[in-house]
Amino acid sequence: MRISPPFLALLILGGYAMMARSDEGMWLLNDPPRELLKQKYGFDLTDAWVKRVMHASVRFNNGGSGGFVSADGLVVTNHHIAADALQKLSTPQRDLYRDGFTAATKAEELKCPDLELNVLQSIEDVTGAVNDAVKPDLPPALAFAARRAVLASIEKKSLDETKLRSDVVTLYNGGLYHLYRYKKYTDVRLVFAPEKAIAGFGGDVDNFEYPRYNLDVSFFRVYENGQPAKIEHFLTWSETGPKVNDLVFVTGHPGTTNRLETLAKLTHRRDQSHPYTLARLRAMEAALLQYGESSPEAHRQAATDHHRYANARKAFAGQYQGLLDASVMEQKNQQERSLFEKIPNSDAWKRVAEAQGVLSIIEKEHALLETGHAFATELFAIARHLVRLAEELPKNSSDRLREYRDSNLESLKFQLFSPAPIHADLERVKLTAALTFLAENLGGSHVQVQKVLAGQSPANQAAELIKGTKLADVAERKKLFDGGKAAIDASIDPMILLAKAIDAEARGLRKRYEEEVEEPERQAYARIANFRFKAFGKSIAPDATFTLRLAFGTVKGYEVDGKPLPPWTTFAGAFERSTENHNREPFDLPPRWLEGKAKLNLATPFNFVSTADTIGGNSGSPVLNRGGELVGVNFDRNRHGLVRNFVYTDVQARHIAVDSRAVIEAMRKLYQAGHLLKELTGRN
Amino acid sequence: MRISPPFLALLILGGYAMMARSDEGMWLLNDPPRELLKQKYGFDLTDAWVKRVMHASVRFNNGGSGGFVSADGLVVTNHHIAADALQKLSTPQRDLYRDGFTAATKAEELKCPDLELNVLQSIEDVTGAVNDAVKPDLPPALAFAARRAVLASIEKKSLDETKLRSDVVTLYNGGLYHLYRYKKYTDVRLVFAPEKAIAGFGGDVDNFEYPRYNLDVSFFRVYENGQPAKIEHFLTWSETGPKVNDLVFVTGHPGTTNRLETLAKLTHRRDQSHPYTLARLRAMEAALLQYGESSPEAHRQAATDHHRYANARKAFAGQYQGLLDASVMEQKNQQERSLFEKIPNSDAWKRVAEAQGVLSIIEKEHALLETGHAFATELFAIARHLVRLAEELPKNSSDRLREYRDSNLESLKFQLFSPAPIHADLERVKLTAALTFLAENLGGSHVQVQKVLAGQSPANQAAELIKGTKLADVAERKKLFDGGKAAIDASIDPMILLAKAIDAEARGLRKRYEEEVEEPERQAYARIANFRFKAFGKSIAPDATFTLRLAFGTVKGYEVDGKPLPPWTTFAGAFERSTENHNREPFDLPPRWLEGKAKLNLATPFNFVSTADTIGGNSGSPVLNRGGELVGVNFDRNRHGLVRNFVYTDVQARHIAVDSRAVIEAMRKLYQAGHLLKELTGRN
Repeated sequence: MRISPPFLALLILGGYAMMARSDEGMWLLNDPPRELLKQKYGFDLTDAWVKRVMHASVRFNNGGSGGFVSADGLVVTNHHIAADALQKLSTPQRDLYRDGFTAATKAEELKCPDLELNVLQSIEDVTGAVNDAVKPDLPPALAFAARRAVLASIEKKSLDETKLRSDVVTLYNGGLYHLYRYKKYTDVRLVFAPEKAIAGFGGDVDNFEYPRYNLDVSFFRVYENGQPAKIEHFLTWSETGPKVNDLVFVTGHPGTTNRLETLAKLTHRRDQSHPYTLARLRAMEAALLQYGESSPEAHRQAATDHHRYANARKAFAGQYQGLLDASVMEQKNQQERSLFEKIPNSDAWKRVAEAQGVLSIIEKEHALLETGHAFATELFAIARHLVRLAEELPKNSSDRLREYRDSNLESLKFQLFSPAPIHADLERVKLTAALTFLAENLGGSHVQVQKVLAGQSPANQAAELIKGTKLADVAERKKLFDGGKAAIDASIDPMILLAKAIDAEARGLRKRYEEEVEEPERQAYARIANFRFKAFGKSIAPDATFTLRLAFGTVKGYEVDGKPLPPWTTFAGAFERSTENHNREPFDLPPRWLEGKAKLNLATPFNFVSTADTIGGNSGSPVLNRGGELVGVNFDRNRHGLVRNFVYTDVQARHIAVDSRAVIEAMRKLYQAGHLLKELTGRN
Repeated sequence: MRISPPFLALLILGGYAMMARSDEGMWLLNDPPRELLKQKYGFDLTDAWVKRVMHASVRFNNGGSGGFVSADGLVVTNHHIAADALQKLSTPQRDLYRDGFTAATKAEELKCPDLELNVLQSIEDVTGAVNDAVKPDLPPALAFAARRAVLASIEKKSLDETKLRSDVVTLYNGGLYHLYRYKKYTDVRLVFAPEKAIAGFGGDVDNFEYPRYNLDVSFFRVYENGQPAKIEHFLTWSETGPKVNDLVFVTGHPGTTNRLETLAKLTHRRDQSHPYTLARLRAMEAALLQYGESSPEAHRQAATDHHRYANARKAFAGQYQGLLDASVMEQKNQQERSLFEKIPNSDAWKRVAEAQGVLSIIEKEHALLETGHAFATELFAIARHLVRLAEELPKNSSDRLREYRDSNLESLKFQLFSPAPIHADLERVKLTAALTFLAENLGGSHVQVQKVLAGQSPANQAAELIKGTKLADVAERKKLFDGGKAAIDASIDPMILLAKAIDAEARGLRKRYEEEVEEPERQAYARIANFRFKAFGKSIAPDATFTLRLAFGTVKGYEVDGKPLPPWTTFAGAFERSTENHNREPFDLPPRWLEGKAKLNLATPFNFVSTADTIGGNSGSPVLNRGGELVGVNFDRNRHGLVRNFVYTDVQARHIAVDSRAVIEAMRKLYQAGHLLKELTGRN
């Protein structure tokens, strides 16, 4: 019998009354919940169904999901996942992010400068090989190195043999290792995007809320050898959408959940990681907001960065409320005790707690100097890669810092040499905010802070760094990359000098983090995972890892303060909400919608909710019906769902999707996109 | 010879070339810089001039300045100082803060619910009496109590004798004590305010920037016995404004500067106080911004709170950049050394440093639980006053917490029983943000955090507190006040229960702060002040204390990146800046301005800058010419002036004022306020 953690808690807490299975789980495609679906929904999950869905699911490497929706390589995702590409394709004269885009023909489709899409081809369990290479008695530093080496070599071997992108994925925080092989697309072209005002209608106010009225979709097309790629497995666009109480599936790439973490780890997150993260996100968001208000062009430049920080801030703020809710922590406590009672002599939990002790000491310095929160500009990220590549490439692939392993170099260089525009003023503002945040956290007397600021205020130092660096120029990056260590040693580019100046300290922090936090945690979690497998089998899905998962749920509304919220909204609701707010930002409908209102069937279902288990990274995930047809595109959770990082709940928590019918109605009536409708549905 | 601190530093650093005196100083009205003005500007500061200015200057007790401008009690200040009153006089149907107001007759003037204005009548040096009462050998706890007692008794005696509001002001951080007596006005009525869009044109973007285009003025009238008060000393409104290079004076109530603080104190501010404050302001600002976007009515409710936090955040951010600038700290270091060399055996600097050691331990808890940052709602402030009044009032006045001394009770009750509206949703949002910030800073396991949250998330706990409390009702407050300790003990109002629950801990933190930080600092600074008096006399003005000061300077522009900025802007510039920004918020001109453009003389001087020494609290200060005529109303500093909290500079630093001519032109052409012009200038 599969027992979900909350259900377990309910059992312990005496909640026997509620015997129905919950819809919890972001399931592995190679170990899907067949029995559960059969039992609860009478649904037979066939191999063919799974295979088709796996090959039709697309990962957006900038942090989202999508799906193939035609044989000619058409991919649907969210507008907010397309945002990065829209921004990079825009100019001061043509703001595609704000105004949208429709390619009337394939020739008009716009090639994205650095967008990489991945499509999963196969999964192979390599747990045995990994564990064989990491002897149980190795001290943490050697164990970490051995593990890094074996992962790099498995990936390299797979890449050489298959030419597919090959990543070993750590599941159950160290309980299992699976090798994922992806087909990679780097010629990705923009086909269609609506205006930001309707894609992100309601802005930060309505983000993570419901009811919603968002056309949060965009379409790309993948090309191979200059031609639209031929796609065997794609999803049919449903003209009828889902019905209430329908079983639906979400296939996508959930980023991170923390449900299998110990109470000590969650307490650390609550009392240290989350407060730090919230402070950082607010600082960056405020800086971008202010810059964006300073002129129309600044607003254009800052728009996507600002949205990204605001979105993360709202997500973390919601998670943080959950961590401070004693009932959530008590539920985690009960789960932990129930497992611990089966293996009272294990010190695995204690080991995780000890690792948090080390983390408490180094966490801020590590995040600021090594993760790079202190240097929040693309230009620093480039400088650091160049400095480290010069150092790492001469080594064997398996001895390098993991991001420089052979199997990752192609994707890394695709980003590093991206011709996407870099705006000096925007980068200066972000770097000023980040350097200021560095000083706020470590203090003005900290030796690294003094090194970084060099006697200047953060604002002045940021201005000089951005003014002085030549790294906005791709040719300059290539020259430094090609010149290797000699070129880096000789460089007096101020951003390169900064990256060099703090590299020893940053590497030292990383080493401590890897050997004294990451490795002990991984070993301890591997043991806990094995206890859990013995007790419950694999009836509990692993935490999310930004790899393909299958979730399922039921389309249904919920109640807030005794007031029922319906499972659907309609176009009419969008016009009402806009009018209520005097059509002011962020409730301003695009002119196309205001002028085209009479053409629209206002009863068209716009957004809907279901109980399926999603998290950030699922943005853009196809929502499918039993027949595997696409009935919606997931784009958000409601705020009740923010606690799902830690515990699944379906009392009020819902994910939110754009109804497939809304896309059809809007494309047909407002966007002159009959040719795309034809491609999606076979009809104009 | 008067030697200002920067000048001193210049001497030490070898800067003999620049021999001209700077315009530094927020001078005491009873010790003005007569000699300096004579020497540098050839200006004779007569007793009559000073007396008239003192009686014509007005303190706004919500944190600003103003001046009498007619014999019938008319007072000018900034719109952003009037904001609190405008907000409290507004309703969902009539938004005076946004839309402005003009009383066509005195009968239409609107009485403010809780605005108190103070006018300084006399200053008396009571240093001897205070020092006599605090024996030098008392341990800090007893010294603190003795000082509190003597201050309360001096104030009470003065109040009884004169019926004037009587406050002892601590100058030079403890070097001098002066008794200030004020005439108090509590019947204050709104006469005129322009629209927020022109008063605060440019919003957060242009705040602390220059060039500026702001009609940041409002007018009130003080009443006595239901009639406009008769004012003997008032300022004549200049129809000609100032000229370039004119000597001008600023008379107002600068809030806080830190120029005489030791390096250890400034380092503490840099590394602990400012980072905490910035994080807090950002958290509150973000919450208010989000709430304000959620609906037009929420926007109205949150507008002034949001502006207050945003303004403070920008000010502190600028100060913080200054503290991280090594040259600023080096200048402070040089100043300190030059004084220290004269008295090498003093341990006063060491004592201040030791106090920072204690402060480091208690600062956040003190700020959150005692200062009340954790409970940022008016409803908690009311609850705490009621709880503490019940405890304190039975004691002798001189033994009470200082805010409950007899001489302060009338003003305190004026605020406590204010009928100003309180919006439950807004208060809930602020309290949620503040409780969240409490947890972020002290951690979810902290005993006080657990007591405050009572097992709930901050959001849920805030919602319950706000929903449950009856303190929005003034009658309920009066009932609890009148009922004294028995009523408070019996109360089950959740906000009263919260205030009671944490009171012992909060008082304990306050006691430690007073006895281990405030008192040792005050004693040490008193000694440093006496050394400084011996070395330089009173040629260095005391730090700002939100009491009346006189500053002076020259009307002149400055350069940024080699580009000259003129000392004036004009109406034409406002229209240009608005057009550049597509007339979008915060650059949206009010319809009255857009429609009335043709009527205006666009060459009218709008805002001007001078080198006079101002700081927050000077908002609304009259700017006077030699003849004592009002030529402008100060409303801001530029960002180069933000460092003036720590060091005066006039290379680029300027305060910014509305030109008296701009007010005349706008009132005449756009606001149908001829009757007010007549009152101001004698002409329509």
